[in-house]
Parts: sequence; C-alpha cells; structure tokens
Amino acid sequence: MVAPARCTDGMGEFDLIDRYFKRPARHAALGVGDDCALLQPKAGTQMAISSDMLVSGRHFFADVDPRTLGHKALAVNLSDLAACGAQPLAFTLALSLPHVDEPWLAAFAEGLFALADVHGCELIGGDTTAGPLNICITVFGEVPVVAGSSQALLRSGARPGDDIYVSGTLGDARLALDALLGKIELPPELLATSRARLETPTPRIALGLALRGIASAAIDVSDGLLGDLGHILENSGVGATVHADIATELIAAYSGNKRATGQFCIQLSTEQWRALALAGGDDYELLFTAPPTLRDTVAQAGRASQTPVTRIGQINTEPGLHLMDRQGKPLDNTCASFDHFA
Amino acid sequence: MVAPARCTDGMGEFDLIDRYFKRPARHAALGVGDDCALLQPKAGTQMAISSDMLVSGRHFFADVDPRTLGHKALAVNLSDLAACGAQPLAFTLALSLPHVDEPWLAAFAEGLFALADVHGCELIGGDTTAGPLNICITVFGEVPVVAGSSQALLRSGARPGDDIYVSGTLGDARLALDALLGKIELPPELLATSRARLETPTPRIALGLALRGIASAAIDVSDGLLGDLGHILENSGVGATVHADIATELIAAYSGNKRATGQFCIQLSTEQWRALALAGGDDYELLFTAPPTLRDTVAQAGRASQTPVTRIGQINTEPGLHLMDRQGKPLDNTCASFDHFA
Repeated sequence: MVAPARCTDGMGEFDLIDRYFKRPARHAALGVGDDCALLQPKAGTQMAISSDMLVSGRHFFADVDPRTLGHKALAVNLSDLAACGAQPLAFTLALSLPHVDEPWLAAFAEGLFALADVHGCELIGGDTTAGPLNICITVFGEVPVVAGSSQALLRSGARPGDDIYVSGTLGDARLALDALLGKIELPPELLATSRARLETPTPRIALGLALRGIASAAIDVSDGLLGDLGHILENSGVGATVHADIATELIAAYSGNKRATGQFCIQLSTEQWRALALAGGDDYELLFTAPPTLRDTVAQAGRASQTPVTRIGQINTEPGLHLMDRQGKPLDNTCASFDHFA
Repeated sequence: MVAPARCTDGMGEFDLIDRYFKRPARHAALGVGDDCALLQPKAGTQMAISSDMLVSGRHFFADVDPRTLGHKALAVNLSDLAACGAQPLAFTLALSLPHVDEPWLAAFAEGLFALADVHGCELIGGDTTAGPLNICITVFGEVPVVAGSSQALLRSGARPGDDIYVSGTLGDARLALDALLGKIELPPELLATSRARLETPTPRIALGLALRGIASAAIDVSDGLLGDLGHILENSGVGATVHADIATELIAAYSGNKRATGQFCIQLSTEQWRALALAGGDDYELLFTAPPTLRDTVAQAGRASQTPVTRIGQINTEPGLHLMDRQGKPLDNTCASFDHFA
C-alpha cells in the first residue's frame, strides 16, 4: 500500500523527521533514528507510560493553529503523567499527515518542543505517514519505588472520609468550544482567555509530583469532572458527594461574569453553568483525594507547586455520586460525561 | 470536539476497552485502566521502544480481515524490537475507529493477542477514539546492559569487510500486493502463500535475540532491502555490494516458479523479479551485518532460532551501494525504496 519512491527532491519521510523532529538525545541512551529508542530508567524507579491519540475534527478543528496543536497533543499526555505523580522523561510521536506542509510542520514542532522543553521531556522516536491528520503520542515518566512500594498516584486509593480536590479552573475549555461551534456568543477578550484553556492546557506536573505520598487517589479531568470522578469511585469501590456550586465557582468565565457589569455578560442558566463545570471536559486539571488530616499538607503542596487547589467534596462509604448546592440541598445528578463513542 | 454522552446502553469507549482489550497485567506493575501503566524494567537492562502507525488505505486495505490486521499491526512493531535484539515486554494500542463494529473488534483483538501471547508481550494501555481507521502501537522490549555496554543491535555498527545477511524470504509480500491491486495475476495457491507474507508477517524476535553480540549492525526490512540497507550504510559511514541474484532467489514465488511446470507460471522479467526482492518492502525480515570470522556463529544463530539466514553481500570502505549479478557483473542500482511521502 506504499508508493514507490521517485528519485526526486520531494521531501520524503526521512527528510521530514530529520528536519523537524530529530534533536540530539540528552537523557535517552539512544534517540530518534534507529529501529528502537533506548531508555535506561534509574535504579529503584518504575516507568509510567500513557498513550493518547488526537484526531482531526474530533479532538481539534482541522484549521487550528498548528503551534497550539503541538502544545496540546503533548499536554494531554503529560497530564496523564501528572495524574500518576510521574516525572516526565521522554515521548514518541506518530503522525499521519494528509500532505507535507512545511510551515504547518515547523509551527507544530515549535509548539510541541516548547512544552517538551519546559518539562525536560525529549522526543525519542516515532513514525510519520500519509493519511488523515492523526497525532499519537506515547509518553514516558519516572516514578520512585520506595521500600518496594510504588509512589505512583492511582485511581484506586480513595477511602471513605477523604476530601476531594480539583486544581485550577473548570469549564472554560468547553465554553470556548461551544463558542467556536457557534452555540454561544462570547465577548472577544473572554473568548481569547477561554480559548487558551481549550487549546493550550497546562499539564499539572508540579502538583502531581508534590502530591506523591499525600493524595490517596488521582486522575486528570479530560472527559469531565463527574465522569472522571466516576473512575476513581469505581476503582476505589466508594461513593462521593460533590459541591456543585463550589465547582461552578471554578469556571473563570463564571467568576468574571459575576464580577462584570453591563457590557460583559453571558446568558447561561444556573444549570448550564453547573454542566460546564461538572461535565465540560478538556480541563486537564488534577482531581484527587486525600484524608482530612492532610488538609494543611495538601494546601502546602498546592503552594509549593504554584497551583490553585480547591476542596469540592467528600468520599462516602456508600457507592453513588451525589451533588449538593450551596445550601447543602441535593441536586439531580444527570448523567454527564463525555464518551468518544456515545 | 466531543459529543456529550447519553444515558443509553450504546457501547462507549470504556466498555469497548473492557470488553476487547483489558486483560490482567502479568509482567507489568500496572496494566490497562489507570492514567498510566507502570513498567519496572529489570536491573541492568535498557528499555527498547518503537512506535508504528498503520493507516487504512495506506498500509492495509479497508476491507482486510481484521484478524490479520491485528496480527500485522503488532508484528511490524515487534519486528523493530527484533532488529534491536530486544526481548518483547509490553505494548500500548491507540485505535481510531469510524464506528464500533463488535465482530470486527473481536477478530482484531484475537489476531493481536494471538501474536502478543506468542512473544509474552502484554497490552498495558492505550486509547480509543472515533475517527478514520488508524492503529498506533508503541512496543517495549528489554535489552541487557553488560559491563556498561548496551547489547542492542544498532544501524551504526557495520564495518568494512563485514558480510551482509538477510533472514527468510523477500518480495513475496509485494507480489501479493501487486496481485491484490490487479497489477499481476497469480494462481490461487500462490496468491494465498504470498498474501500470508503480506498480511501475517513473522517478526524475527528469536533471531534478533540470537544475534546479540554477533551482528555488527541490524535493521528490519520494511521499506525494501536496498532502502533499509541504505540506512545501515548511512549510519555506519560505509558502502556495500549486494548480490542481486542471490537476493532474488529468496523470493519464494520465484524459486517455486522456477521449479514449476506448465500450469504454474508467472510472467515477470528478470528486472521485475530483482525489483521485488530488492525494493518490494513489507518483508519484516532482519537485514544484518557480521564479520566474516563469525560465519559459523551466524549460521548457528540461524539454526538455534530456526530462521533461514542467507549471505547476500559485503560492506565496503567506500560509500555507495553496488549491485552485481550471478556472474559478478555490476548492475544498475536504480533508486528503489519506498517512502510514505514520495
């Protein structure tokens, strides 16, 4: 299914890799350019591994700025390392492209490597092919094993009585998506800030590292707060109560909207704001649990990692996910998450 | 870019993973089902990592048997581990599907796991999404480090005077492809055997392991013998002479054709047969070099791994790739390889 190469100067697969994606290996024993890359994890560590595939028209608009796409493709993977409490090491990139567009590739590589460099995470290999635009990144991080026990944060460790926390803000990425889809109108400056949350999310690596040994369970919020909390509850065999209005206050556009006067106003119902926070998705914040005895320690981890952390609920013994409003009254928990095949 | 999930019984992303791809972790510290998988390589080993992306219509026909597709998607990745002399450990799978087709998924998973089980290589994580059919596998293997020196087989170690070898057969996969594309007619039984080479290639893991410490350089033949040899030459800073007719004898259909009488006959010119062997591609055989002093040792590695191995040429000091025929006369080296963007 491959076309015979011609003896022309057209940019081929190997030139493309050399020009845009080959950089000297720094940490890896062997980087891009052989059949395999070679990584040698430090003694007494485990390797944390995660893979995410981004498809044009599904995870991003076909005409998205390639610089932000390069950022986001790596960010969603780094977010999985953050949720695991892993230190990023390296990644592979497999890229299917409809055609070779050099300015697009240069901008994509720029966005990708800018974020990679922030986290000392190096590209060690991958694949390029012709086909519908598709980006598959597999990321590798390091987690210490102390006295035979992995320091990785898992989904399965939440215990009844634990507090539930979320980092940063919620819902703004979905607000931007709805605006870009024409479902809602946003003032230009609010569109810009919300769109930055959608297109260039911040993987919470520093917070994930700071929460090792503190958080009892963790996950990153990609499909929506309640949906992702559901994975913690299922894996831990517990239930939870979430303060819907505290979560809603975490929408930057909501807090801004409340503070704004006259010209700055978005017309959404209370239910719509809550749905943004609870089921918006694409937030790439850390959702985690910790015992109430560690509240000061959690706050300290947030400060040390310069990451806002908000307590939004509690783990229950009984299975089930309950919502309450600011008066403590129960709210309907409508099935609200995102699923790529639903 | 994701649709809100509905509270229905449609099979979603998580059900799909659970039903077809989740199996208990055997070697991995943590397998499918958390933000990251966790692998703990043995002390004194490096991890070999490779990623390959297969796109519908480019690497396989959209209507290919999903069982063979599952096999091939993993086989081409395992072939990279073989070329590195690595012992397979685990892999991640990212899958983009136009829709959820349960019989297709069941057959794909069956082909995938059948090959994975042969090599004790377990699925530890990945991603599923809706989109044009695309399969991205990242594979992990183990390579020992002895006295501070990696035992990995690289492309860069070929030295002047080294013999050049290739395993198994060449060209039959391309012959099948040409037949399926209607460019050539093959008798049914020959189409069946050639098609098996195209659709269910055998990764040469046992040979790769047996060649540790013996081969000076290695690569797997995916884009075509000469193109892949070119990577060894470039990375090693050497040239080569290849016996085109010895390579051509390695086409199973060619040897069969020569032996056949009457009803079993393919009409190809000498040049066409040579092109199949030298530039056919999709062979997933090992192409490697070793010093002439190790000929017996190489033969023994072939026998020990039950893999046919044929000496097809020699490494030269002077750069350049030369071909000769069975009489030792030079042949034109037409630019013959495959490149996904040419």
